[in-house]
Amino acid sequence: MNPESLITDIPALGVATLPSPLQKRADEMGSISFVSDQSRVLIEVDETRINRMIKDQKELHCFELAGPRHQIFFDPSKLKCALVTCGGLCPGINDIIRSIVLELHYAYGVQHIFGIRYGLQGFIAEYGHELFDLTPEAVVNIHDRGGTVLGSSRGPQAVDEIIDSLERMNIGLLFMIGGDGTLTAAKRIADAILERGLKIGVVGVPKTIDNDIYMVSRSFGFDTAVDVATQAIISANNEAEGYPNGIGLIKLMGRHSGFIAATAVLAQQDVNFVLIPEVDFDLDGPSGLLSALENRLASRKHAVIVVAEGAGQKFFEAGKHERDASGNIKLKDIGLYLKNTISSYFAGKGIEVSIKYIDPSYMIRSLPANANDRVFCNFLGRNSVHAGMAGKTGMLIGHWNNHFVHVPLKVIADKRKSVDPRGSLWRSALGATGQGSLKNS
Amino acid sequence: MNPESLITDIPALGVATLPSPLQKRADEMGSISFVSDQSRVLIEVDETRINRMIKDQKELHCFELAGPRHQIFFDPSKLKCALVTCGGLCPGINDIIRSIVLELHYAYGVQHIFGIRYGLQGFIAEYGHELFDLTPEAVVNIHDRGGTVLGSSRGPQAVDEIIDSLERMNIGLLFMIGGDGTLTAAKRIADAILERGLKIGVVGVPKTIDNDIYMVSRSFGFDTAVDVATQAIISANNEAEGYPNGIGLIKLMGRHSGFIAATAVLAQQDVNFVLIPEVDFDLDGPSGLLSALENRLASRKHAVIVVAEGAGQKFFEAGKHERDASGNIKLKDIGLYLKNTISSYFAGKGIEVSIKYIDPSYMIRSLPANANDRVFCNFLGRNSVHAGMAGKTGMLIGHWNNHFVHVPLKVIADKRKSVDPRGSLWRSALGATGQGSLKNS
Amino acid sequence: MNPESLITDIPALGVATLPSPLQKRADEMGSISFVSDQSRVLIEVDETRINRMIKDQKELHCFELAGPRHQIFFDPSKLKCALVTCGGLCPGINDIIRSIVLELHYAYGVQHIFGIRYGLQGFIAEYGHELFDLTPEAVVNIHDRGGTVLGSSRGPQAVDEIIDSLERMNIGLLFMIGGDGTLTAAKRIADAILERGLKIGVVGVPKTIDNDIYMVSRSFGFDTAVDVATQAIISANNEAEGYPNGIGLIKLMGRHSGFIAATAVLAQQDVNFVLIPEVDFDLDGPSGLLSALENRLASRKHAVIVVAEGAGQKFFEAGKHERDASGNIKLKDIGLYLKNTISSYFAGKGIEVSIKYIDPSYMIRSLPANANDRVFCNFLGRNSVHAGMAGKTGMLIGHWNNHFVHVPLKVIADKRKSVDPRGSLWRSALGATGQGSLKNS
Amino acid sequence: MNPESLITDIPALGVATLPSPLQKRADEMGSISFVSDQSRVLIEVDETRINRMIKDQKELHCFELAGPRHQIFFDPSKLKCALVTCGGLCPGINDIIRSIVLELHYAYGVQHIFGIRYGLQGFIAEYGHELFDLTPEAVVNIHDRGGTVLGSSRGPQAVDEIIDSLERMNIGLLFMIGGDGTLTAAKRIADAILERGLKIGVVGVPKTIDNDIYMVSRSFGFDTAVDVATQAIISANNEAEGYPNGIGLIKLMGRHSGFIAATAVLAQQDVNFVLIPEVDFDLDGPSGLLSALENRLASRKHAVIVVAEGAGQKFFEAGKHERDASGNIKLKDIGLYLKNTISSYFAGKGIEVSIKYIDPSYMIRSLPANANDRVFCNFLGRNSVHAGMAGKTGMLIGHWNNHFVHVPLKVIADKRKSVDPRGSLWRSALGATGQGSLKNS
Repeated sequence: MNPESLITDIPALGVATLPSPLQKRADEMGSISFVSDQSRVLIEVDETRINRMIKDQKELHCFELAGPRHQIFFDPSKLKCALVTCGGLCPGINDIIRSIVLELHYAYGVQHIFGIRYGLQGFIAEYGHELFDLTPEAVVNIHDRGGTVLGSSRGPQAVDEIIDSLERMNIGLLFMIGGDGTLTAAKRIADAILERGLKIGVVGVPKTIDNDIYMVSRSFGFDTAVDVATQAIISANNEAEGYPNGIGLIKLMGRHSGFIAATAVLAQQDVNFVLIPEVDFDLDGPSGLLSALENRLASRKHAVIVVAEGAGQKFFEAGKHERDASGNIKLKDIGLYLKNTISSYFAGKGIEVSIKYIDPSYMIRSLPANANDRVFCNFLGRNSVHAGMAGKTGMLIGHWNNHFVHVPLKVIADKRKSVDPRGSLWRSALGATGQGSLKNS
Repeated sequence: MNPESLITDIPALGVATLPSPLQKRADEMGSISFVSDQSRVLIEVDETRINRMIKDQKELHCFELAGPRHQIFFDPSKLKCALVTCGGLCPGINDIIRSIVLELHYAYGVQHIFGIRYGLQGFIAEYGHELFDLTPEAVVNIHDRGGTVLGSSRGPQAVDEIIDSLERMNIGLLFMIGGDGTLTAAKRIADAILERGLKIGVVGVPKTIDNDIYMVSRSFGFDTAVDVATQAIISANNEAEGYPNGIGLIKLMGRHSGFIAATAVLAQQDVNFVLIPEVDFDLDGPSGLLSALENRLASRKHAVIVVAEGAGQKFFEAGKHERDASGNIKLKDIGLYLKNTISSYFAGKGIEVSIKYIDPSYMIRSLPANANDRVFCNFLGRNSVHAGMAGKTGMLIGHWNNHFVHVPLKVIADKRKSVDPRGSLWRSALGATGQGSLKNS
Repeated sequence: MNPESLITDIPALGVATLPSPLQKRADEMGSISFVSDQSRVLIEVDETRINRMIKDQKELHCFELAGPRHQIFFDPSKLKCALVTCGGLCPGINDIIRSIVLELHYAYGVQHIFGIRYGLQGFIAEYGHELFDLTPEAVVNIHDRGGTVLGSSRGPQAVDEIIDSLERMNIGLLFMIGGDGTLTAAKRIADAILERGLKIGVVGVPKTIDNDIYMVSRSFGFDTAVDVATQAIISANNEAEGYPNGIGLIKLMGRHSGFIAATAVLAQQDVNFVLIPEVDFDLDGPSGLLSALENRLASRKHAVIVVAEGAGQKFFEAGKHERDASGNIKLKDIGLYLKNTISSYFAGKGIEVSIKYIDPSYMIRSLPANANDRVFCNFLGRNSVHAGMAGKTGMLIGHWNNHFVHVPLKVIADKRKSVDPRGSLWRSALGATGQGSLKNS
Repeated sequence: MNPESLITDIPALGVATLPSPLQKRADEMGSISFVSDQSRVLIEVDETRINRMIKDQKELHCFELAGPRHQIFFDPSKLKCALVTCGGLCPGINDIIRSIVLELHYAYGVQHIFGIRYGLQGFIAEYGHELFDLTPEAVVNIHDRGGTVLGSSRGPQAVDEIIDSLERMNIGLLFMIGGDGTLTAAKRIADAILERGLKIGVVGVPKTIDNDIYMVSRSFGFDTAVDVATQAIISANNEAEGYPNGIGLIKLMGRHSGFIAATAVLAQQDVNFVLIPEVDFDLDGPSGLLSALENRLASRKHAVIVVAEGAGQKFFEAGKHERDASGNIKLKDIGLYLKNTISSYFAGKGIEVSIKYIDPSYMIRSLPANANDRVFCNFLGRNSVHAGMAGKTGMLIGHWNNHFVHVPLKVIADKRKSVDPRGSLWRSALGATGQGSLKNS
């Protein structure tokens, strides 16, 4: 993070001049406060760096605080809104949909809210996907179920066709719930809308079970994912302890970052080796995993290994970067690769082992959110409505220093958060596993 | 089941002549009743067949009722007992161990109880596995954890060596917790012990997560397995509904029988096709699965398939019956085969599908038992102690017509229970899925 | 149970002469079997008693086996059905509703199914409760939620008014889901219908979380209740162990029977005293609970007590049998009474104790059913449809010797199942708690 | 919060001059970083206030960042440590104990760690509570269980006696896990130790399920509590919907603050009224709860109410502030009071209601921590060890702006965090319930 280079101003469709319908309720309650655009949250909290910036008379970069504005841009009685969910499943998508719809409807009085079906495909006529009429009745119980009631799909669609579709439907405000690719698409759509001079707001809600959105301290579904990943660790440990030289191997989510893997080994401290994309490791050689594993079995008779799906990609031949429909590099399956490599290694040494491989990914992604993620989704959804109604665009709702904030999409584009190999999360994960460096010198 | 041909007498090491230590407690409580060997439970309950047997003056076959006997065979103060757990993990093994140990210790006063480590390997000196001293303190909390604290292993060991080992350790009573193979081994061990004229009892506790032990209406862990299998179905359904032409495919346990698969589709009624070993099906052809699946996608856009691991083995080349260490035929992986076949089929037709494959087996097998299975295990464990202390051998504790009973090992050897394609379970499973026959005429 | 005196014939509205719509599906599948009224399940399975009955040439009493009949009584295209749910909540009611509706609709083609709202009140015009149109869409996901979507109420309503209401709505088949009181009402309604010469079938589904319906081995929701009751025991134990002289006291359901209490103490073996209605106990005196509890605290510093709500009613003044709206005797709160009595006792002795009282009743009753109960409910619901469509009336769907059966309402009226103080359940519960007799001699 | 007046320096027993044993491991891994005392986290992040402070040349207050120090104060080979847990149960206490013990033992090599039993009582000889030897083996699995393995108690003990006891046991480092009262005691003990010139460190770990420790953004167990509180809300809602004029009333924890109540109604949005200590409300009068509830029942037939235990204390007679052993004011039971008041109100109006009261407190407090709290506890425990080993005292481990920090005990003494009636949490809670002001003007 280099906050000195950030530009954190939020694009706007115009000046918000209409009184918020929340004012009436605020008067009734005597207790609802509005948030001003001047309420801003410091990005940097390290005293040393802050003091240096003050001394150097540099600007202290901040994010706008999220929340309801006194004045709004759109006339709720005329506004039509659309929601779309893209990419892989993640616990909490339905909570986001639900809270956006309920806030639009009950707090602002918006009458027309449409769900775009099956991700960006839903904008493209030839797919023939019908719209989903998002009434309060239709969404009130959807958070009991995992997945997304709107459906999703992977891969991009033409920005122009999407905007044409928005115009045809007369949409004024679009909520895009998705990851990297989706938020990049959201930025392009928002930019092109501004270029065309249209008054259509685009507000993103960052969805990544991997928790690796840049400048976003936490993304929804991550907590649920870690919660359930611990079940897989318990299972792997029971299988490992259950047999002579038992090895439990779990592949967890994390294409580019090891947040789930590193956090899960802290949540369920039965793991002996954790492998993540951010920290290089060897298989062979005196310090390599295989040797360390053999030592572990010799001394303790069983071992549990957690590997993030993006770890160890160096073991696959270069030059073969296939991409999936979303443009993500298709990862080679490090889980199966490890399983086979470990089996061969011990077979070659005449050591009988019992290796059990667990890949819980789809059982995790498709879960309903736990209570913590539900609360988080509720804030994300309602704050995205406040931002959108105020005419803000080209932004997402983030979470920083314990506050919900507005983050411009251009800040996060093409960047990614990762586990700091010198930080406290990885330090603690190493402490919990007791593993040494798996890198030959 | 043909009860007319059953011989249900239980072998005995000798006459039980010692007073049961439970008598003292019975006197205190005024409410403990003993069970006589003459208390027997009718096997057949079909009125028509019973009346025919009565008319033909055939004997009505029965199982001995399980429970504490007034008189016991072993002197608890001198008895040494051993427990061994074999084969795959199953929810509840630790509950069985715990209840056997607590009943032996507190109810009968047995002081020496040993756990044999890592299955039958633990009897064989060369493996070097140490004994586990099964004190009440050591077992009191083990039911909180899945797996087996004793460890397990697959595969047979020499019967003679096992008996030699029992003699060396001076064991009078051996509890064997395991499946098919283990119970067959138990029968051989019990027979050989009687031939040698030794006074060592062998009592089996049937362990099969598949619930397919012959003449045993229910085996422990099955209920927990179904419980958690429903989670996999929910996940698969969410993934299927989440994408255009989404297909969720779950492989569930069931090497030779479809009890888990058929019961799980009743417990979570989101499944469209269920495939079990007992019911033949085709992939190709007008009635085959692929064609039915294509129709389902055309009309409903998504589908969920449950396949038992032993289903569809006919699709693999004959003559290749490899066996694992336990002597079980190594099943080809019908789950992966279906996944690939379905993908190819639709690719060949130019239809884009999104298929997600879930194999929750190890996450299920390694769970702790749910409350229902805990209660069941408690009865199994304590009744196996009552039987063993009374000098019974070559038997297992079964469950029949809602009673715990003694089943001779010779009754169940080389047989297996399976789902009746014309019975109510399969009828209901078909009703829940709505699937037709998947067999070309 | 005295099966010799049972009359187990099922009343019928007339001869079933129409072909079952299930025949078509049976032909398609080649695997659906029908059940004949001659398929009957022996009630008694005790060999000694059976042989005596044979010798004495007594009839062996049986229940009709449940399941689809070849021929049905009602014409599905013209039939209107109604469902009503009465009394307290119980896990699984929505599963029952769902399976009845789906079976009526999809298997038999019944188009008009109405839910009577708020129990028997829903039949009475003055309450003004509207009908609930039970379409497949309306019920397909209701099993995810606890409670009853139809609502319930306690207390009787006039039989004549109910029948008048059925006639006005032109109902041919009524499913009544409820306990003691409801099933007694069902019997009266069915009898009065037959007297009036009407062709309205009445089929009961026994609902009692306490599991104490006479001649019904298991009732739905019981398994879920025990499952969750174990959570309360764990909590109480943690609170008890957490403080010097800590006492955890849990009141569990069981107005007249201790099935939940006795089973829960087997499922979670942290309990030291279990008190049920079937077994008398004293508080004072050398063998009384207070003295035993004092001894337990002296030796182990903490204690856990489970009391069924119907236990110890003798401690309340006689002559005060108030009844609630359902006509049930209002039980005095034994949980609070014990809490206060124990507190006073130790305060009087100058012994500081920390007592924590847990009453989880409403948290248990309102849960959705677990997988096991879901499967069970599915069979209950579908079999009640098969029975009703065949013209059977004045009966309920029971479970006996592992089969679903037809039980005439007159068999169970005014009777109740209870825990046998000399049977294996109570013997095991005593073994698990280690408690002695709490009765002064 | 008024950070301008904070003094956030941490007292120290002396200068830390010994090399940390973690250095060796850091060298092996090449990736462990140490934290300097100069690493500090800004307390205030509001841009406006920060800029005003800069302009006014005020000091920007900060907390020391937690984490391992390069140099430590105590010689691990000679150090004896003690842990004590005080006050009410809270999910995660055992995780804290476990992580402190494992970090002391494995990372620093401390050999002697003692658990003080039953809270502060354990220091006082006359209670006769024995020490608990906290070896790694003794704690490795304790996080599977709720409660505290050390036991707890309420109420203060003489500071001098506690210090005498520490001296007798030769303790160098004391970890105190507890709430308000305990942390105040910790401060007194730490102060008195410094006065006596002893070298005994006192490090607090804030335990309050209510999450209301001043200057601590989150306390362990809170997330688990909210998670399970949602179960009670679901139950109450099912009971409420299940009957005509059904009312579900849940009392949740929160003696002085409504964090659990307000967060739970966001996590499970079935609640119509939420009552917390920070927001006054009336029962009677046109805007009072009773009138609002009557309107709700008239329009929707059911209602769910959540009340924090500290809400509405004004309804109880003044002058009756009894205190419990911990010195906490004994709250009158607002839950039962509301239940009775509501019942009387509707009885008086001749309106039949069905009210169900749920108090899940002890079932929540005694739970094991969920994954999220486990990870949090792991950081709290290990960071408290780092602080203590570095010779810091009179402090606790807090969490602020997403960092673990050192908070002087004097900062938090006699203060408390509360729900801001004009902040986003309460605004969202009101949005989720739809309730208006319940205060007559």
